[in-house]
Amino acid sequence: MTTTGITSDISLDVVADLAAQLRVDSIRSSTSAGSGHPTSSMSAADLLAALVARHLRYDWDDPRLPVNDHLIFSKGHASPLLYSVFRAVGAVSEDELMNGYRRFGQRLEGHPTPILPWVDVATGSLGQGLPDGVGVALAGRYLDRLPYRVWVLCGDSELAEGSIWEALDKASYYRLSNLVVIADINRLGQRGPTDLGWELDAYARRAEAFGAHVLVIDGHDLDAVDHALAEAADNAKGTKPTVILARTIKGKGFSEVEDSPDWHGKPFPPDMAERAIAELGGVRELMIRGPLPVPAEPGPAAEHPSTIPRQRDAENPASAQWPAYPVGDKVATRKAYGDALVALGGRDQKVVALDGEVSNSTHADEFAHAYPERYFEMFIAEQQLVAAATGLAVCGYKPFASTFAAFLTRAYDFIRMGSISGADVRLVGSHAGVEIGADGPSQMALEDLAMLRAVHGSTVLYPADGTSTAALVDAMAGINGISYLRTTRGAYPGLYPDGEKFPVGGSKVLRSGPGDQVTLIGAGVTLHECLRAADLLVRVGLPVRVVDCYSVKPVDTAGLVAAAGATAGRIVVAEDHHPEGGLGSAVADALLAAGQQNLRITRLAVRGMPGSGTGPELLAWAGIDAEHIAAAARELTRT
Amino acid sequence: MTTTGITSDISLDVVADLAAQLRVDSIRSSTSAGSGHPTSSMSAADLLAALVARHLRYDWDDPRLPVNDHLIFSKGHASPLLYSVFRAVGAVSEDELMNGYRRFGQRLEGHPTPILPWVDVATGSLGQGLPDGVGVALAGRYLDRLPYRVWVLCGDSELAEGSIWEALDKASYYRLSNLVVIADINRLGQRGPTDLGWELDAYARRAEAFGAHVLVIDGHDLDAVDHALAEAADNAKGTKPTVILARTIKGKGFSEVEDSPDWHGKPFPPDMAERAIAELGGVRELMIRGPLPVPAEPGPAAEHPSTIPRQRDAENPASAQWPAYPVGDKVATRKAYGDALVALGGRDQKVVALDGEVSNSTHADEFAHAYPERYFEMFIAEQQLVAAATGLAVCGYKPFASTFAAFLTRAYDFIRMGSISGADVRLVGSHAGVEIGADGPSQMALEDLAMLRAVHGSTVLYPADGTSTAALVDAMAGINGISYLRTTRGAYPGLYPDGEKFPVGGSKVLRSGPGDQVTLIGAGVTLHECLRAADLLVRVGLPVRVVDCYSVKPVDTAGLVAAAGATAGRIVVAEDHHPEGGLGSAVADALLAAGQQNLRITRLAVRGMPGSGTGPELLAWAGIDAEHIAAAARELTRT
Repeated sequence: MTTTGITSDISLDVVADLAAQLRVDSIRSSTSAGSGHPTSSMSAADLLAALVARHLRYDWDDPRLPVNDHLIFSKGHASPLLYSVFRAVGAVSEDELMNGYRRFGQRLEGHPTPILPWVDVATGSLGQGLPDGVGVALAGRYLDRLPYRVWVLCGDSELAEGSIWEALDKASYYRLSNLVVIADINRLGQRGPTDLGWELDAYARRAEAFGAHVLVIDGHDLDAVDHALAEAADNAKGTKPTVILARTIKGKGFSEVEDSPDWHGKPFPPDMAERAIAELGGVRELMIRGPLPVPAEPGPAAEHPSTIPRQRDAENPASAQWPAYPVGDKVATRKAYGDALVALGGRDQKVVALDGEVSNSTHADEFAHAYPERYFEMFIAEQQLVAAATGLAVCGYKPFASTFAAFLTRAYDFIRMGSISGADVRLVGSHAGVEIGADGPSQMALEDLAMLRAVHGSTVLYPADGTSTAALVDAMAGINGISYLRTTRGAYPGLYPDGEKFPVGGSKVLRSGPGDQVTLIGAGVTLHECLRAADLLVRVGLPVRVVDCYSVKPVDTAGLVAAAGATAGRIVVAEDHHPEGGLGSAVADALLAAGQQNLRITRLAVRGMPGSGTGPELLAWAGIDAEHIAAAARELTRT
Repeated sequence: MTTTGITSDISLDVVADLAAQLRVDSIRSSTSAGSGHPTSSMSAADLLAALVARHLRYDWDDPRLPVNDHLIFSKGHASPLLYSVFRAVGAVSEDELMNGYRRFGQRLEGHPTPILPWVDVATGSLGQGLPDGVGVALAGRYLDRLPYRVWVLCGDSELAEGSIWEALDKASYYRLSNLVVIADINRLGQRGPTDLGWELDAYARRAEAFGAHVLVIDGHDLDAVDHALAEAADNAKGTKPTVILARTIKGKGFSEVEDSPDWHGKPFPPDMAERAIAELGGVRELMIRGPLPVPAEPGPAAEHPSTIPRQRDAENPASAQWPAYPVGDKVATRKAYGDALVALGGRDQKVVALDGEVSNSTHADEFAHAYPERYFEMFIAEQQLVAAATGLAVCGYKPFASTFAAFLTRAYDFIRMGSISGADVRLVGSHAGVEIGADGPSQMALEDLAMLRAVHGSTVLYPADGTSTAALVDAMAGINGISYLRTTRGAYPGLYPDGEKFPVGGSKVLRSGPGDQVTLIGAGVTLHECLRAADLLVRVGLPVRVVDCYSVKPVDTAGLVAAAGATAGRIVVAEDHHPEGGLGSAVADALLAAGQQNLRITRLAVRGMPGSGTGPELLAWAGIDAEHIAAAARELTRT
């Protein structure tokens, strides 16, 4: 033990001590937990010691202070290092570090999550912390307009993820000089050498080509580390993100494991840990605090490079009026999304929008024209689209991220991790299902409802007309967690009068009578087919109930139970989606969970591989158009 | 009309004519279809004309000829250009081009799919054709060992996808000089300028940094195009992939739309089409054939850079014996996967394996040690992992691609597109569910069953012991489409004797008696919990049936109906997965579809956000351990 009390204004000698302490504590915590990644922590200990002691501007007593820098461990498996930093600054106690790490019910999880107030985003799926950091840096530069920096620690293995390069591309495009990547190039992945090993020049060429200001250093030379961090901080005045490429040694500081491919993700057994701690100079109790952030007010608004010219009509406050769609008039729900987002943006300055280079299809471009300063074009990079939304969300903004629903599958890992981050991210997928017609299956979302329903705490909405779409966009602004709005390509008649309420978790009965024989359940385009089927069935003397199941998750169990009860358990569900995990599953799950008996549910869904065609041709081919729905209903009443 | 009959040995003058014809035909086909992307086709027409006429070695009469070059349109929306090429070589008729494009029931879909015999993989989700092409080039270089080249046409918008850079990284790592990327840099995306516009130098720096041999040309200068293609073909003798960056003009050849941001994805109205065709010199009927492939035998086997040293025991044929696991002995299903894959590889030379840098966890490393020449390390790039598997599959290999199940979410768009490609891709996800314990939620697959079930034509398998795992790995070798094996981290007792059969679509009844009150259904780790629950319940006088639902899709409807019938409709399903879309959904869907009445199904699943802990702690926390299963069964018999 070398020092007690809190040290600030820290010399490099003390930084060296701190680095040794971080290594020792990474070993102690992982050995005590019986799992974890000490060697991946030890390679980056010098980098983190210098950063936290001398460059990270952070008030550890007030982690929500807007001017605080941000520290993101993209290599989330180095959690022992992060938690050892938290102990060194007094944020986490010795007891918590030694008895809480990786234990049930504790907050020092195997990989960091925002359960900890000093953690912005959950990491552990590699290649995500940096894209998330781009979102935080966008907030800092263009929305908060505060001088905080975003420091992201990356591992070298994760530099093989394409998402890293999407992130650097956007970081340079958006001139995010407030973003600093510290890459811990220890040359070893989980099962052996990385793709590029210690070829730091190769990494440097890549990062430079993607627009970064690159510094190559020895990650164990504290003087070099300190200078690089200072230069990175200074570079915040410039126009490029900084990438510090630090050549490091995995397991640095304990000669038995240094640069060994056999010690990834393994704690040292107690005897080894003892030798390691001895080699590192023993347990220390250094308490340090680095620089505090300088109080600052938001700076001037900066135009960002993707800015779309503000259109005159958007400057008119009237454009922020809530859109209204007359019953019977045709409108595409994707258009209603764009209209409603403009209105929402007019009354809530926290609303921001992002899109994956298809804003003229999703209609996010309406928002872009109205509030260019709050719109971020992510080009065709759906992973970064969702990650940027996550980063913006954890900074207190209300992002709506849109693309074709089919292409949200590209970002599923990011959506999943966004849920673990507890981020309130609003996703909007247009052009769902075979309804889109001629473009063919690559553009048809047929898995999106299943994908989004399976996300923890998610909300899945699928409106059929303009009024309900606008109401649900309004509702999404207040939804916690991952929410998803599925919109449709084609225009369909308005069903609901202006002012109708659409609670999340509700449904609407559009046709009903005392003699209803069957309940038809649809959402989006299939609701219109259900209504048409009801007309067909009335003509043959078969009255049916029609339910708009616009809230797919949570689903309206009470409404479904009532409908099932009124029609002797006979139900036809039609969905423009594969049969697994979508609307039909939601309905069946709810009725079974409610203990509904004597169910006879016919589920119509897209069971084949579609090709091109017109929307109506493909709805008929899939067996989800009015004629098939009507036939299914008749079949149910015959048996 | 300038020429009739088939022309070969084609001069650049004829190439110019051909390019005009391809433009005209792209316009004619899209105008006749009423949708499509003529301008995105016109920018690349010169590139394709020169390629097809003078460099692509392809026997259009025998598209399955092993020595044929491969042509992949990563920018799948340029399908009018591809189909116009097919017309020019006589593979597609004038009638089909004019009346089949984007029509219902026709094979000239909006985006190309392998319904067409000259198409390897489905494209249309951008950034996938090149990663798929890496798989094809891997097959060519290391497995087929034939001198074919893989030519991939990319758009510039898609260069923003991280998957492109994963692909180039792997292409250079694996020295795929047989891969040529032709990038059509027309500076315009769907809704406006791309990120980098015409900054060809910036693209060049990126591609060079990622290890490519880069050529920058004017994509409308036929002489330059021809030289670049010749150099690329010659470069196949080298060690680097070639990237040709061609500066082009969107809509080139029709002055009204050239370089206009307003003409993406829109066919020209008939009057405009007429003017365009006139400006391009009218309709042509040129029929051409480029060079044929040179007959070749497989060359010498090359060691690839990721080769893992062959281990001595793997050279022993005995190592290919089918693994056997004594009943009661503990083994992890992930270990059984590795064992079985080695055995399978011993008897089927078409079996290949890939992994995302976690082969020592998934146990794919056993295969890597046994057959290093058939193992491809994809590092931490799950999109490329699945894309390479897709490329290898369409070349006739039987790829098994493994990583942590959670990280397959990273590749969902690629899995979806693989299904559209009709590729037989075998996916293996280890470390599923909360059972993994200390690592926390980022590493826990809790959405994978829903995600994979929702894929068209997929097979989803989830074995609980070594014997069933090995049998299902064997079965996967013969499964068409996307198949998925979910494996578990921990070791659990063997349940089945050697030689037991596990048909896909089957299930096993592990406990049963005439007085069974409830059916307990599990798979993987929860099957072991169901068995333990059955023991607990026997002690309190409640006999139950236990079903191993190892085949989640297709699920054993008959077996489930029998079990439900035997236990008065009382069922408890337990799954280490979120409640939506997984095992419980599969069971409920099957029973409802079978018309089973009076069901009382209790579904136990992971309903909260897990943290760290031990496996047993987390199974208990989630309410899916034996105690909770037993309690749910007792509750069902009380009501």
